[in-house]
Amino acid sequence: MTAPIAIRRLNAADPDFARQLDHLLSWESVSDGAVNQRVLEIIDAVRQQGDTAVVEFTRRFDGVEATDISELILPRERLELALTRISSEQRVALEESAERVRLYHERQKQDSWTYTEPDGTVLGQQVTPLDRAGLYVPGGKAAYPSSVLMNAIPAKVAGVAEVVMVVPTPRGEINELVLAAACVAGVDRVFTIGGAQAVAALAYGTASVPRVDKIVGPGNIYVATAKRHVFGQVGIDMIAGPSEILVVCDGQTDPDWIAMDLFSQAEHDEDAQAILVSPDAAFLYRVAESIAKLLPTMERVEIIRTSLANRGVLIQVKDMSQAIEVANRIAPEHLELSVAEPEQWLPQIRHAGAIFMGRYTAEALGDYCAGPNHVLPTSGTARFSSPLGVYDFQKRSSIIHCSAAGASVLGKVASVLARGESLTAHARSAEYRIKQ
Amino acid sequence: MTAPIAIRRLNAADPDFARQLDHLLSWESVSDGAVNQRVLEIIDAVRQQGDTAVVEFTRRFDGVEATDISELILPRERLELALTRISSEQRVALEESAERVRLYHERQKQDSWTYTEPDGTVLGQQVTPLDRAGLYVPGGKAAYPSSVLMNAIPAKVAGVAEVVMVVPTPRGEINELVLAAACVAGVDRVFTIGGAQAVAALAYGTASVPRVDKIVGPGNIYVATAKRHVFGQVGIDMIAGPSEILVVCDGQTDPDWIAMDLFSQAEHDEDAQAILVSPDAAFLYRVAESIAKLLPTMERVEIIRTSLANRGVLIQVKDMSQAIEVANRIAPEHLELSVAEPEQWLPQIRHAGAIFMGRYTAEALGDYCAGPNHVLPTSGTARFSSPLGVYDFQKRSSIIHCSAAGASVLGKVASVLARGESLTAHARSAEYRIKQ
Repeated sequence: MTAPIAIRRLNAADPDFARQLDHLLSWESVSDGAVNQRVLEIIDAVRQQGDTAVVEFTRRFDGVEATDISELILPRERLELALTRISSEQRVALEESAERVRLYHERQKQDSWTYTEPDGTVLGQQVTPLDRAGLYVPGGKAAYPSSVLMNAIPAKVAGVAEVVMVVPTPRGEINELVLAAACVAGVDRVFTIGGAQAVAALAYGTASVPRVDKIVGPGNIYVATAKRHVFGQVGIDMIAGPSEILVVCDGQTDPDWIAMDLFSQAEHDEDAQAILVSPDAAFLYRVAESIAKLLPTMERVEIIRTSLANRGVLIQVKDMSQAIEVANRIAPEHLELSVAEPEQWLPQIRHAGAIFMGRYTAEALGDYCAGPNHVLPTSGTARFSSPLGVYDFQKRSSIIHCSAAGASVLGKVASVLARGESLTAHARSAEYRIKQ
Repeated sequence: MTAPIAIRRLNAADPDFARQLDHLLSWESVSDGAVNQRVLEIIDAVRQQGDTAVVEFTRRFDGVEATDISELILPRERLELALTRISSEQRVALEESAERVRLYHERQKQDSWTYTEPDGTVLGQQVTPLDRAGLYVPGGKAAYPSSVLMNAIPAKVAGVAEVVMVVPTPRGEINELVLAAACVAGVDRVFTIGGAQAVAALAYGTASVPRVDKIVGPGNIYVATAKRHVFGQVGIDMIAGPSEILVVCDGQTDPDWIAMDLFSQAEHDEDAQAILVSPDAAFLYRVAESIAKLLPTMERVEIIRTSLANRGVLIQVKDMSQAIEVANRIAPEHLELSVAEPEQWLPQIRHAGAIFMGRYTAEALGDYCAGPNHVLPTSGTARFSSPLGVYDFQKRSSIIHCSAAGASVLGKVASVLARGESLTAHARSAEYRIKQ
């Protein structure tokens, strides 16, 4: 016998709706002073003592007794072994997923371009891959092989020469599916280390761990705090908050399907957020009934219950336009448009990590194998950031090649502006190129 | 009578070269504990007290006595007034520069795309602009109208609806050129506030200062530290270090030109870095002579002398290939290829913010008016980041629209992988979409 489920309800017509919604959405990563201090010490130790510090922290935090860092390295052959240890059904699924992810991401690849002006001046942009990327993969219960695919494949498609993965193995526990995914995704080297020490090692390099140019992948508060501190020394991806979904439904989808879609978000962890918006009040009740009916059948019943009770909500709106307004306000990580003609609403959606259109597009399909990335901006950061993509592993260099004639014309403009800024060396450097 | 100039020399053939170069390049932003603490207090005060805190900090740090934040707002009309107060030569130069910057950046604009698979499933990427961007412009001596153009125009080209600029006016000092540039660039609103308080106001919003989605633009250590702390709440651009240039010369450019190009970097501030690399040892001596000859004629002679003495270097290399190797190792913000056929080296350049090709392309031309952005990755961060661009003001949403047939196929793959991760709600949500 499980306890009944209480899920909050809001109505967008309520004058206090905006405040209530904001309150429900509010979430802040709590890198408090103590965490910051601890992480700074770990980073400092790794910079000073390199491998020795990494081995020591791994012993202390992961309970892994290595006497030398060489015991914490998995070569490519070990990844290939993992591929033989999983079921053939799993292997096929990993390979199908990887192939679809690869095909989608190929379309994100950007090319260099130039154009020539009438006076012969050439302007352009050269696009190049990063030399080396670091991929953080959490160990233990949150180890997701699908995340390995989603993080490593865009790097490989971008042309990154070396992808280095770190994954902690608490008390020596190795996840074969994770290693198999690393093999399929083309990861070059794996270190069985984690935490702030792994982030520091990747950012600064040690005798054994190569310095990377960018670190991607999710982690706990120590990992997130370490990434924030090494930002600038290396690139980082977005610092992720808990995962969330906003389902917009016109009331015509099977309520069991919608309930399960909400569960699939809520089962991640207690802080995950699942929100349903509908103009159909009766439908919201039917989904609540489905939730009550299905919840006891779920394996992660307690996580789902806590997540839905603390952060879930069913929102009634006037019409679909108001539903889209709510979606733009939330800027959700996942937006499911479980409606009859979803494409008609697409042009009005300004902020969302990924948009799952129509009744058949469960978020879970996108999480694993549709093709687009499942690393998405959380907590409203879709207002200004994008899914992880090939563009995160490419960078651009501006190209400027002035002809003699072009430099003469531009030199005059530059001279005026440079003198306006009292930068006379700039002005004189430009003036040398003006034709007499 | 000015003191002679001492500029360091290195030879890439020296076995200790790599270490010496690394030492010379090393630079770290020093957000020490005290700065961090102070900035966190300012952010907290602005979040708690809003406009009142902003007015109080502006009084305390900028010496501006406002009784209400309304006195710290410049409407669009004030910007238009500034345009009438500068010389017509300056106005024309600003407008020509803005037009070229706009034309170049138009080419960076990215479009949405979709593709349809044989079973009717549609995948794609929807590209949208940020709603609102915040532009930080330093006040006082480092107020650069060209930076206003370079930061605001890409945002406007991206389609950002509102660009809000903040610029401190220490002791009430207003820079008309900066306001005129803001007018030309299409800035919508200006607040005469600065420091960590301006960053906090833009990140969280106050009654008067609108919350933005991303903050760009350079600032002092307080501004940089504040940006690091609000990252996640809003997007930020790269945290910039001191500006640097690497000039690669084959020895055939007028040494006076090269000396002045180095000066144009060194005059920014004492921490700026100017490096010359050449396979021609005699040429390095000629440039050193030009430096000694021209230095006393410069307005910012002391800044240039300090910068060159502390951080400048002339590097002798074996040949052009080694010069390019050094360039890739440094990953310079500005790379000037002052050589006969620069395009032949372009494919080998892996890391650089901007590449200035040929003897006529002085960096100063790119700083002001060639078209590409002058906000570039510093301190080796070109290894993983790009010039500021339109792409910084656009974001992407993945689009997934599964057909019934597509969902059935994908559902099977997702189910296997989800069960491998023990996420059974994911699996069941996918399985609902499998055709029976």
